[in-house]
Amino acid sequence: MLMSKLIGERTKENPSDAMIASHALLVRAGFIKLVSNGIWSLATPAKRICQKIEKIIRDEMDAIGGQEASFPVVMPRELWEQSGRYTSIGSEMVRFKDRTGRDLVLGMTHEEAAVHFVRDAVNSYQQLPVMVYQFQTKFRDEARCRGGLIRVREFIMKDAYSFHIDNDDLEKYYAKVYDAYINIFNRMGMKRVVAVKSDTGMMGGSVAHEYMLLTDVGEDAIVICPKCDYKANMEVAVSNRISKRDEISEEIKEVYTAEATDIAAVAKRLGVSESKTMKAVCYCVKGSEELVLCFIRGDLEINEAKLKRAVQKDIAPANLNASQELQAGNIGAYNLNVTNTIILFDKSLENQNNLVTGANKAEYHLTGIDMARDFKDIEFVDIAKVAKGEMCPICNAPLDVENGIEVGNIFQLGTKYTESMNMTVLGSDGKPFHPIMGCYGIGIGRALASVAQESHDKDGLIWPMAIAPWQVYLCGIRMDNSEVYQKANELYAQMIKNGIEVIFDDRDTSPGVKFSDCDLMGIPIRVVVSPRSLANGEVEIQLRDKTLKENYKCEDAIGKLKEIMGK
Amino acid sequence: MLMSKLIGERTKENPSDAMIASHALLVRAGFIKLVSNGIWSLATPAKRICQKIEKIIRDEMDAIGGQEASFPVVMPRELWEQSGRYTSIGSEMVRFKDRTGRDLVLGMTHEEAAVHFVRDAVNSYQQLPVMVYQFQTKFRDEARCRGGLIRVREFIMKDAYSFHIDNDDLEKYYAKVYDAYINIFNRMGMKRVVAVKSDTGMMGGSVAHEYMLLTDVGEDAIVICPKCDYKANMEVAVSNRISKRDEISEEIKEVYTAEATDIAAVAKRLGVSESKTMKAVCYCVKGSEELVLCFIRGDLEINEAKLKRAVQKDIAPANLNASQELQAGNIGAYNLNVTNTIILFDKSLENQNNLVTGANKAEYHLTGIDMARDFKDIEFVDIAKVAKGEMCPICNAPLDVENGIEVGNIFQLGTKYTESMNMTVLGSDGKPFHPIMGCYGIGIGRALASVAQESHDKDGLIWPMAIAPWQVYLCGIRMDNSEVYQKANELYAQMIKNGIEVIFDDRDTSPGVKFSDCDLMGIPIRVVVSPRSLANGEVEIQLRDKTLKENYKCEDAIGKLKEIMGK
Repeated sequence: MLMSKLIGERTKENPSDAMIASHALLVRAGFIKLVSNGIWSLATPAKRICQKIEKIIRDEMDAIGGQEASFPVVMPRELWEQSGRYTSIGSEMVRFKDRTGRDLVLGMTHEEAAVHFVRDAVNSYQQLPVMVYQFQTKFRDEARCRGGLIRVREFIMKDAYSFHIDNDDLEKYYAKVYDAYINIFNRMGMKRVVAVKSDTGMMGGSVAHEYMLLTDVGEDAIVICPKCDYKANMEVAVSNRISKRDEISEEIKEVYTAEATDIAAVAKRLGVSESKTMKAVCYCVKGSEELVLCFIRGDLEINEAKLKRAVQKDIAPANLNASQELQAGNIGAYNLNVTNTIILFDKSLENQNNLVTGANKAEYHLTGIDMARDFKDIEFVDIAKVAKGEMCPICNAPLDVENGIEVGNIFQLGTKYTESMNMTVLGSDGKPFHPIMGCYGIGIGRALASVAQESHDKDGLIWPMAIAPWQVYLCGIRMDNSEVYQKANELYAQMIKNGIEVIFDDRDTSPGVKFSDCDLMGIPIRVVVSPRSLANGEVEIQLRDKTLKENYKCEDAIGKLKEIMGK
Repeated sequence: MLMSKLIGERTKENPSDAMIASHALLVRAGFIKLVSNGIWSLATPAKRICQKIEKIIRDEMDAIGGQEASFPVVMPRELWEQSGRYTSIGSEMVRFKDRTGRDLVLGMTHEEAAVHFVRDAVNSYQQLPVMVYQFQTKFRDEARCRGGLIRVREFIMKDAYSFHIDNDDLEKYYAKVYDAYINIFNRMGMKRVVAVKSDTGMMGGSVAHEYMLLTDVGEDAIVICPKCDYKANMEVAVSNRISKRDEISEEIKEVYTAEATDIAAVAKRLGVSESKTMKAVCYCVKGSEELVLCFIRGDLEINEAKLKRAVQKDIAPANLNASQELQAGNIGAYNLNVTNTIILFDKSLENQNNLVTGANKAEYHLTGIDMARDFKDIEFVDIAKVAKGEMCPICNAPLDVENGIEVGNIFQLGTKYTESMNMTVLGSDGKPFHPIMGCYGIGIGRALASVAQESHDKDGLIWPMAIAPWQVYLCGIRMDNSEVYQKANELYAQMIKNGIEVIFDDRDTSPGVKFSDCDLMGIPIRVVVSPRSLANGEVEIQLRDKTLKENYKCEDAIGKLKEIMGK
């Protein structure tokens, strides 16, 4: 490839809407171009990186017996009605009508299509397990696109679906995919990827893991034990919270707390720690009048993902001004009279005593609440966020909380789709059963952007060799010099002949422009042919990660390049 | 790949809706599965064929300087408004709103996206020519899907867009693409492909060619001169029509023709040949009251594509019963009084005399019409279909008309998109100009189906080696025989080691099932390991096209396979 022909506008200025480095650098290097909110065109370098990522994934999927197929982008409503997701998924799924008025959708994921595909073709337990995968365009009408290719609306995803006789077989296979994913991210050159337990969300199912690239700009919070193996997405993370009960339970007393309504102010006024209070947090069920009232230890926060799972309904923050029954700022669980309200108590309150809580009356709180004495028949559920420093549920070491970008996920789906879509297979006993499914995803564009996020410096991108758009950036300095022209062209031809992927900067521009474009684009190896180096019969080879900068005899250059590339 | 694991249901029965062999066989072999009207899932073998076709196309596009990119499937209305096609394209383009109410479309083609992509990145004539291409999903809401993968709604297309300084440069590049396309179809193994001149349709532009696979089941009619190089799609084909003028022009006479209203009946009643009549064919302008009245020599047919271009409006057949002015069955050009009607005369009538035509009066016709004498200031346009046996416009040999499937197309677009989307580039004179564009398409699924259509027999598909899903079908007969089991597995491992793509039929089924599956799937080479062949230390190698069936020593098998594959 010649730089003089490469389509892509390289710029010095960061795009004004770029909040993270990978977004800014991919745009500045001319790798990606915005078409509409969350919709991008990819230029040749980005396309080449995607193809290399896809090749790595394909290798690893084939190695665990995957069969590559292709399911459609556009699917009929009927298919999604079979699984129930036509209605259960909200406005992030695009729906439209065709010319005859039939309802179609754009695929956000392909569980339904995968079951449709194998339903008739796999009839016997002897054919199991099978795994089918594809690289296919997905469209999700994200409310909040961000970070360039990190969170978009249209993207290519590798999605895979496996089918099993029983849960044991799924778990065995799940472990293989788990390892294959580790290989994939390693081979791409991602260094700080961890697999964490996660929520199953709209997929359904039970066990799930996310692969998280740890980075400050990540939107997900991950709880990690630095001592043992415990890692979990904040949405499902737990901690070991032992709070001691006071020896003596005081009596309940009503105390005047004036305008102190938030828990910090109340605790301060009464001279108690926040962990000795029970605060109320209120939500509503989406699209309904029903309220969800949560009580939790005052020093903790509600984890909305856990809360959703606990109430099994979609929730939103509540506007308490509209409530006749609740005294905002002074809500307490004791002597509370409400209707059409789900009430939940977090596990942190279990068996606690001498707690402060609202008196359900303006300007008053209660002290001396004893959960065991003052409440009957209440169940405690885990709806609290884990905070940094809390104790690991496995080994009791203080936990870390880090940020991460989700670069892949794997799910144990159970029979949610095979049951609802009526896929059966004959067992060894001759009886039909619903196979157990797993599903496994990696977004290609996000993987590209994640590597860019992890691997860059102030001058630009730094691609790992395995996925670099080209391995070598061949720089001719003073292309009007006939010796440079000839040697550079000769090296270009030699590199191509030797299977080295090279972009040749044949432009009639200054060394400064060429070097900065090379740095910005992040090509791992720079080879410079200049009048000065040629005077000694040499070329300069420099690595983008700055671990090498040396001159080599022209005739040794190809050999050195192959050595660097490990060919 | 193991046959025991391959997902795909092989059946003996043709699907009831399959009208052509490629459709029936691809379904019967389990290669494709219908999801909705014109929307298919591809199983592993079909996906592998597509990948090989894509590889061939990628090679040829790269060889002429193409840069692979990726434009989005979903695009904003604004982009298509810039070119004017948001309104000019009808209901075959899918339009929908996103969650914020913004209009989006599904890409049917990507001229707009390509101009958007290069518009800012290419600023100087020195960067031209450039060509960018992609493999991307298109969705066209076809009213009439047919033929399995031949005419569908969702499909992957290789589309390419080139940009040029001037028409000369475009024509030079166009010639390169023309040849690259010939290479592509040759390399895929298509034998009867011809490039023909074609209509530019919704793309705009002037010159265009279609690549047609000649086959009886093709929907397009192609005019071909068996002597010289003339080839054209019926939509634009012309012929050399010299009809002699009679020496003496008779007077116009009104004759009684009773209920003879169609031209055959009138000619018969009056004892003249149809070529001595002038018939009227009436259309209306779509969505308007305006009529289009065409006069043409009685033995010829109207070519609606030519007619559309002549009137530059979309047309539909007219219902003359509603007309107050026209006497259906007796319409004539002489003494005709009509309003709100476009009148056209086909070139076949130019200078003719002694013609029969309608008298604009029930039960009467006129004879003795002389176009030169009886009409003033009329222009003759070519709106006639070419018929088999007419004379070649180049060499006067009798023309053939054949059917074909369009497998690719190339267009000279001119500045339609660069002007409307305001893409300018600085010329060598420092002045901005609109680059000239070309665009070039190949549908991948249709290419696959076209090869299947051209290359099959009663037993199934016959894939050319270059795009076969696997090169070898390894058949173990009596896998319960330990010698067979061991030798077959050994050969399987050797083939993989030698880079031979092999599917291993390891199933516990009868030889008949295995052989018929192998034939149905169309794998070029069959290798059979059976107790009988092993008794002589041999395996049987048979080619799907029946040009070879012989036994070889086990130790020679890999060498023979490599020889067959030309490795």
